[in-house]
Amino acid sequence: MNTKERSRRRFLKEGAALAGLAVGGVRSVSGQKREITRLPTWEEVEGKTPHYYQRTPRRTYGTPSPFEAVHREPKTPGDRAWATPLDQVTGIITPSGLHFEIGPTPTPDIDPRQHRLLIQGMVDRPVILTMEELKRLPAVSRIHFVECEGNGNTVIQEFMRYGGMMQEGLTLRHICGSTSCSEWTGVLLSVLLKEAGVQEGARWVVAESADPGKNFRNVPLDKAMDDVMVAYGQNGEAIRPEQGYPIRLLVPGWEGNINVKWLRQLKVTDRRYAANNREKGFLLTYPDMNPDEKGRWFQFELGPKSIITFPSLGRQLPGPGFYEISGLAWAGAGAIRRVEISTDGGRTWKDARLDAPVLPKAHTRFRIPWNWDGKEVVISSRCTDEKGHIQPTLEEYSKLYGVPIEHWVTTSGGVYHWNPINPFRISQDGKVHNAIYPLPL
Amino acid sequence: MNTKERSRRRFLKEGAALAGLAVGGVRSVSGQKREITRLPTWEEVEGKTPHYYQRTPRRTYGTPSPFEAVHREPKTPGDRAWATPLDQVTGIITPSGLHFEIGPTPTPDIDPRQHRLLIQGMVDRPVILTMEELKRLPAVSRIHFVECEGNGNTVIQEFMRYGGMMQEGLTLRHICGSTSCSEWTGVLLSVLLKEAGVQEGARWVVAESADPGKNFRNVPLDKAMDDVMVAYGQNGEAIRPEQGYPIRLLVPGWEGNINVKWLRQLKVTDRRYAANNREKGFLLTYPDMNPDEKGRWFQFELGPKSIITFPSLGRQLPGPGFYEISGLAWAGAGAIRRVEISTDGGRTWKDARLDAPVLPKAHTRFRIPWNWDGKEVVISSRCTDEKGHIQPTLEEYSKLYGVPIEHWVTTSGGVYHWNPINPFRISQDGKVHNAIYPLPL
Repeated sequence: MNTKERSRRRFLKEGAALAGLAVGGVRSVSGQKREITRLPTWEEVEGKTPHYYQRTPRRTYGTPSPFEAVHREPKTPGDRAWATPLDQVTGIITPSGLHFEIGPTPTPDIDPRQHRLLIQGMVDRPVILTMEELKRLPAVSRIHFVECEGNGNTVIQEFMRYGGMMQEGLTLRHICGSTSCSEWTGVLLSVLLKEAGVQEGARWVVAESADPGKNFRNVPLDKAMDDVMVAYGQNGEAIRPEQGYPIRLLVPGWEGNINVKWLRQLKVTDRRYAANNREKGFLLTYPDMNPDEKGRWFQFELGPKSIITFPSLGRQLPGPGFYEISGLAWAGAGAIRRVEISTDGGRTWKDARLDAPVLPKAHTRFRIPWNWDGKEVVISSRCTDEKGHIQPTLEEYSKLYGVPIEHWVTTSGGVYHWNPINPFRISQDGKVHNAIYPLPL
Repeated sequence: MNTKERSRRRFLKEGAALAGLAVGGVRSVSGQKREITRLPTWEEVEGKTPHYYQRTPRRTYGTPSPFEAVHREPKTPGDRAWATPLDQVTGIITPSGLHFEIGPTPTPDIDPRQHRLLIQGMVDRPVILTMEELKRLPAVSRIHFVECEGNGNTVIQEFMRYGGMMQEGLTLRHICGSTSCSEWTGVLLSVLLKEAGVQEGARWVVAESADPGKNFRNVPLDKAMDDVMVAYGQNGEAIRPEQGYPIRLLVPGWEGNINVKWLRQLKVTDRRYAANNREKGFLLTYPDMNPDEKGRWFQFELGPKSIITFPSLGRQLPGPGFYEISGLAWAGAGAIRRVEISTDGGRTWKDARLDAPVLPKAHTRFRIPWNWDGKEVVISSRCTDEKGHIQPTLEEYSKLYGVPIEHWVTTSGGVYHWNPINPFRISQDGKVHNAIYPLPL
């Protein structure tokens, strides 16, 4: 490409909405007049305040800039669920410090020198491992999301609570903050089970935690032999205490609660154990709910889901002009194949660009340029996974689970595996609202 | 696969060296006798000490377990180079808190509300951007390594200092701790330059930092229009102060010093500017060294490189038995195609397994099972990139740069773009030593 070409090829073919920025720099996007031929010295900006101070000495372990105030927060005051501020996460990796956390028990700080993993039950060679021994075994590093099966149920609760209108002050973390994506490192469960020698007739692996809650979950043997991992690494370092230090079960693509944290025992059995978790919300995975082990209510795999992270619920656009619509998509069944965006309330759809790498059972970043004309608009994203499953509309989701929409918005019953398309309405003042319910604009 | 098959298929076909772990659990790897039919209660372990305490309240931003003591450290006392403990990093992502840091000036804490990016020089439409405006532009998220061009030169310095023998106490961070890999998010420089309109005759982009050092570097226009990024995100959150908050230049695959941190200006020019960095070590990239812009000494792209992270320099193997040899490989020219491992001093080589994703200009994790018989052994890794370049031996590297090995080990001259195969020698006592120099075992 020669330089003339370079000069002609402006990137904003969709409407050159950033023209204000580019034409001689007289005006910025925000309409502010600016001198652009030189950078301001810091004395010229906001009086005499210097623009930086020198941080000494160097830090042995870095932390974010003091100017950044991105935190996990409870979804609602006093909530057990601490949510990832998904609208402030760039890329596909969730910073370990911002991984969502849900659970009835406080986080234990386990001494790894004393921790053990026991593998027993219907195996030829029961085995007990120290953390040191576990780390000598063949390992894998894989990028996977973990999503709470209740991610999204706040939508319903808030809808109920506020009489059909979403509460002011809600942001993306309230409606979609219980999913995070990390690079996990650990030993495949299949490696451990092959070493132990699974006996004839075994069908389940019961995973038990070491925390005072003595939480346990049942993993079908087929899944256990597939891609389940006993993970000790998260984004390059030891798993954080809140995510299961020193080890957790990682069950890619399946609902969060089965990814047992602070793992201490794996028992191979021919039957499921009744989980002892008293949380009403977890009843869906209980055998007593599904004596025949059939039906969608007994499905552990999370469906295809996408959410626009910008512009998203609670944000305020400064005005008309160019924006990039961006978001995340993921699916329990495998990789995301396609994400489509609508900026006309779902009438027409355009393919978004997917940032590489697009990985199985991992958050996938999508982006599409957009020029907002300042009129009220409804934007939505929908994804398709590698098996061709398409993210459902609210109506389709409702039909799939055989529960009418009215049921969810009028009862306090939990909503699980919530993956319908979640449109946002942007009003003329630039405010972004939730538009998932069929309410008049 | 039926359960009988499962029982038969032990994973350690290479020698079942973990048999001690598996045979009824009577013995662990470390030879300790154990009761394996049940987990110890914590009262039974080390007296009455409970194995955990409950951490309350929940933390808005998580940190590692207090039992983990993984830190960045200076390569040598008083060194300006703070190194990543690469031997303790799992996977390919380097935790942001452990990213290496090198530079003569302290880290500035820049107020992003006051920071500006100015693009001027040989462009049709000069532009100045606030951080808010920059973040409205089309972005990309990509996983790339950043490596200091001097990564590895401690090998030489220490060799000199200690009379041909490596110093006791050296670990992997001393010889290879100045490379890190992150998911970076930002705006491609090509997007900004197309918007500004590059003029005829332009050949370089001069990037200037906002820190007191007023560091600047020259990026050839072709590279600038390729994959260079103005990055504001690192591993899902704002770039850390030490890595250039609020924005840095990211020049994938090229030597670290050109990835200008705390970026404040990009000037498009027809000539290189003489960089003002007074560091002797950076002379290699200075125009006065290379008036004809030719020759390997003027190359910015980093060659293919791999390093075994376990077992690596300074580690101590507890005894003979099964281990997984693991490490990282990367190349400035693109993706890693192949990593081979030798456990006989380079006589024979076996392909290692590469963990997905294998990405261009990114750390790639390799792994291979290994059974140590307890005899002295030399282990090495060598990689090949997608263009077929093979990591050189020390002799080949020496020939490539036209500098004899003796020169490096007898002068204090810097060593740059250091990428020869780095063998480790494991002595009978399990200690891991550096074996890069042709010394008698």
